[in-house]
Formats: sequence, C-alpha cells, structure tokens
Amino acid sequence: MKADVRLIGLDWGTSSLRAYLYDADGKVVASRREGWGIRHLPEGGFTAALHAVTADWPACRIVAAGMVGSRQGWLEVPYVDLPADATSIAHGMLRLDACDSHELWIAPGLRRHVPADVMRGEETQIIGALALQPLCQANTRFVLPGTHSKWATVVDGRIVAFDTVMTGEMYALLIKHSILGAGLPDFAASSFVERAFVRGVHTARDSGAEGVFGRLFSTRALMLAGELAATDVPDFLSGLLIGEEFRIALQRDNGVIAPLCLIGEAALCQRYTLAARQFGYAVPAVLEDASVQGLWQLASAAGLLTDARLHSYSGVTP
Amino acid sequence: MKADVRLIGLDWGTSSLRAYLYDADGKVVASRREGWGIRHLPEGGFTAALHAVTADWPACRIVAAGMVGSRQGWLEVPYVDLPADATSIAHGMLRLDACDSHELWIAPGLRRHVPADVMRGEETQIIGALALQPLCQANTRFVLPGTHSKWATVVDGRIVAFDTVMTGEMYALLIKHSILGAGLPDFAASSFVERAFVRGVHTARDSGAEGVFGRLFSTRALMLAGELAATDVPDFLSGLLIGEEFRIALQRDNGVIAPLCLIGEAALCQRYTLAARQFGYAVPAVLEDASVQGLWQLASAAGLLTDARLHSYSGVTP
Repeated sequence: MKADVRLIGLDWGTSSLRAYLYDADGKVVASRREGWGIRHLPEGGFTAALHAVTADWPACRIVAAGMVGSRQGWLEVPYVDLPADATSIAHGMLRLDACDSHELWIAPGLRRHVPADVMRGEETQIIGALALQPLCQANTRFVLPGTHSKWATVVDGRIVAFDTVMTGEMYALLIKHSILGAGLPDFAASSFVERAFVRGVHTARDSGAEGVFGRLFSTRALMLAGELAATDVPDFLSGLLIGEEFRIALQRDNGVIAPLCLIGEAALCQRYTLAARQFGYAVPAVLEDASVQGLWQLASAAGLLTDARLHSYSGVTP
Repeated sequence: MKADVRLIGLDWGTSSLRAYLYDADGKVVASRREGWGIRHLPEGGFTAALHAVTADWPACRIVAAGMVGSRQGWLEVPYVDLPADATSIAHGMLRLDACDSHELWIAPGLRRHVPADVMRGEETQIIGALALQPLCQANTRFVLPGTHSKWATVVDGRIVAFDTVMTGEMYALLIKHSILGAGLPDFAASSFVERAFVRGVHTARDSGAEGVFGRLFSTRALMLAGELAATDVPDFLSGLLIGEEFRIALQRDNGVIAPLCLIGEAALCQRYTLAARQFGYAVPAVLEDASVQGLWQLASAAGLLTDARLHSYSGVTP
C-alpha cells in the first residue's frame, strides 16, 4: 500500500458494510463489501467487523455514515437539523476511539421537526451527488428510492427539506400479506409489465388531491371485473405506489416541476424515470451510488484530510 | 311458530352467517348467528349451513345478502351499477332453487366503474339505514368502518357514489408487519389512548392535499425523537389512517361537510365520531347494524312479501 493513502470511508447500513480506501486525490484505491450490517454483525461486534473490513489497510482516519450512527449502531450521533450541507453535517460528526489503530468519525443523520422525519446515510449520498452533479446544486429534488424512499429538496447547495415515503415496505406488505396479493401466481419470477406499471402511475396521478390510499382497493375491483390480469397486479400496484410519491411531491411543490436526481439501483431508477415522465418531469439524472463521494466530501468538510485540523472538532469518547 | 311468518333474511358474509325470521310486519321474531361465513362452511357446504341455520323455522322465502353472492359464494350475482336504490338492487337479485323447502333470492353487490370499486353486503345495510333514518335520504355520507371501510354518497334516496378505503387491513399490516409496529409492547391489552388518536387525526387533516402516505413514517420519527411513547403508537396510527378517510372524503366533496351516518360496531363508531369532530363534522348518526332492516326492504322492493308478485322477477336456476 502506498504512502499517499489518506482516508477510509465506511458506508455502514442495516444490512451491509462497504469500505473504501482513498488516496490523497480522493480516488478509491481499494474497496470491500461485507454483509455485516448493524443487525448482522460478526462475532466480536462492531470492532471485529471494522478490523476485518480494513485488514491490511494502512492506519488512517475513517469516516462512517449510515445506521452505524443510530441508537442501534456503534455510537448514537445526534441528528443535525435542516437546512443542512456538508459543513453542518461534518460539524455534527462524533469521534469514537474504540479501535486502537484508527481514528473513527461517525456522521450524523438529518432530522426534520414538522412533520417529524429522519434519515441516516442518505444525507451522505446527497452530499456526494452534489459534488458529482454540480448542476443539481441550484434547485433539485433528490430521490433515493427503496424500502423507505427519501425525497430531498436541495436549494443553493443545501438540503432544505425531505420526506420519507414507505413505498418499498408498503409494496411488500400489500403483495405478501393483503387481499390485493391473495391468490396471485408466483410473481418473483415474472418480468416487468410496463403497461400495468404505467396504468398504476396514471391512476395515482389522476387521483388528484385524494391520493391513492382510497384507490388501493381498485386493484382488487379491477381483478374481479376481469379488467386487470393477475400477472399485472404486482406492477400495477408498484405504479400506484411510486406514482403516489410523485403526486405527493407535486402537491408539496405546488405543481412546480423541479429537476430530479435519482440515486439508487438501476432497475428501480428505471421505474422512477418512467413514472417521472408520466408526470411531465424531464429525464432525471441517475446515480447508482454516491456515498463513496459523499464520505470523501464529509471528511474534507471536517478537515480530516489534513493533519493540521485534526483536533479542531469536538468529538466524544463514550 | 305462528302462521304470520313472512320472510327469512340472511346476512351471509365471509366470516359469519346471521339469520332472521320476520313476521308480516317486518318484525324479527327469531334470529340465529353461526360462524359459517363463506370461507368457514360446515360439512355439506352452503346447503347444510342453510338447513341448520333455519332448522325448525317454517318454509318461507329467503333473501340473502353479502359475500354469498360473490364468485366464491353460493351463486355469483352480477354487480348492479350506480346510481342504485332498493328497487334497482332488488331487480338484480337472482333466485337459487338448490334447496327443496325454500325459495332463496340472493342480492347483488354494487359496482363503480371509474375508479373501479365494488361492495357486497354494505349496500343492504345502507338500504336498511335509509329506512331507519329517513332524514338521511336527502344528502348523506354513509360510513361503514372496518377492514375495508366503505364511504357511500346518498342523494335523494339513491346511492350515487362510493369508495373503499383499506383502513382496517392497512392498520393490521402496519402494526403487525412493518417497522412502525416493531418493538411495541403488547398493545392488544391496552386501552384506547384518545390523545394519541386525536394527534394522528390532526396529522392526517393537516397533511392537506399530500395525504398521509408520506406521513406514515413520522410515526417512527416521533418515536425515535422521544415525542411519541411506544404505547401511543397504535392509536396514533389508527388516528392517522381514520383521519385519512375523512381527508379524502372532504377532498372528494370539495370541502363541503355533509351529514354523516355511521354503521358499525360501537367502539369503532366512537373513533369515527371523534375523528369527524376534528374535521368539523356534526355528530354523526350511528347504527350498530342495519342489515336486518335492509333485507326486509329488499324483499319488499322485490315483491317477495306478497304471493301475487311471487313470479314477477326473472330469477335463474343454475
């Protein structure tokens, strides 16, 4: 390993742990991925996971983001309030000296007070995306689709608002456990039915201010009427729920269509791109992952890339 | 049993079967309840259930309503379109001669085309309620809360619109299977926390045109922030979802507050009454059950209460 290695970044979530080794230019020179999310730690817990994932890497500072900073994580790092940017998030980082060979800083999540909402990890992705896509700094909606989709509003380079929509979790609940999924063929093997998805998106869009909560049952009614094939149900429902995210976003933005930047897995982002088109949005920017860049940006904003500013932040040692 | 017995009514749903024996004045002179819903039939199926529940009762015409007329029921009776009233519903009844000693008529459900929606059984309750509460015939929203809550708009004595909201099912899914219910104490035993319920209703109300789908996660965020006790979560969530029903209803009615009539179990109707107050509604009329009256009204509209009109309806014998 060369002497110009400068930082280790950890994207440490609920179900996985990714580690990146950066050189002095912020380039990733090595990376590893393990299944050691905070709920799936190896014997020896957090310390053992850290040692193993950084084995043979030179001792240098570490910045970690994600659920590792939650109450169920290694060290609970208090949420930072809105508006937030790399500087304010870096100020909220806490230092953990639990491991002998490393200086570990854990990033905070973000909190919105009314309505109450929180995120952990996505803020780092957004900070990364802002560095990767400078044009998105002006006025952009960042969408991180998934189990708990996040929609964040960035204005002038700062995160000024965000919302969580339980789209992925709701989809799984309805398909697996509700009457809407009862008696469906094994859909896991089936391919994407675009027509059914778009139909669901349109149903959400056309629900106006009522929203889809009162339209979910139409899935069942359409099936009973022979107007929706059982094989179309999963993607129709996916379209309904993803469409609802866009409907809500437009209501929140008073109908103003802002530029979009999607951060997430490619197939999921394709669905969101398709939904965005139905609502009149321009084709969104898409990033598969931005936490690599986000961790580097946070380290930079915290002054952790130069020895001179090493002790300028008030970390705690629990 | 007296000679003036005129009709047997069956309220035959998914999970239970209720039978009523009426005299010539429409008064119930005997009633029985069994757990033989269409998914829980005794050995011998529908015929055996009917014979048992009417055992020792004199042979007379029978009117049945509910899921017994569905595809999974005894005889699929096609849905009747909106607008609907006792006459049009009675016209849609089909006759089944499967049982030797009885002439059995099964009532249809109602269907709305756009957005697609269906009901079976609730239409009979609404017809009964209109007879019990004549003041509700002018312009009233009938609400039948439950697993799949029904909201029906009655104008000039006719059902002109209705919507299904999967409130009860969604509540159960979220509490039992989602992150919102994770780690809660055993709530089944706990009593109603009115404060938490009303807070949930207000959250739904104040979500405006966005709706609660993007607010569900706030349940989790409030818990994490220590602003919502774990013991308050179930009723907060109940308030969110029931509140959403009212929010949707007001959006549909363009903010016009119509008179309400609730039909359902007393404790549940109390929650809806409390929610209605938060939205500015007058105290709703409440009926615990109206199907007894509804079955009689349908029999009357079908001319089944007089021998002269016995064969005036075009029933089929499958």
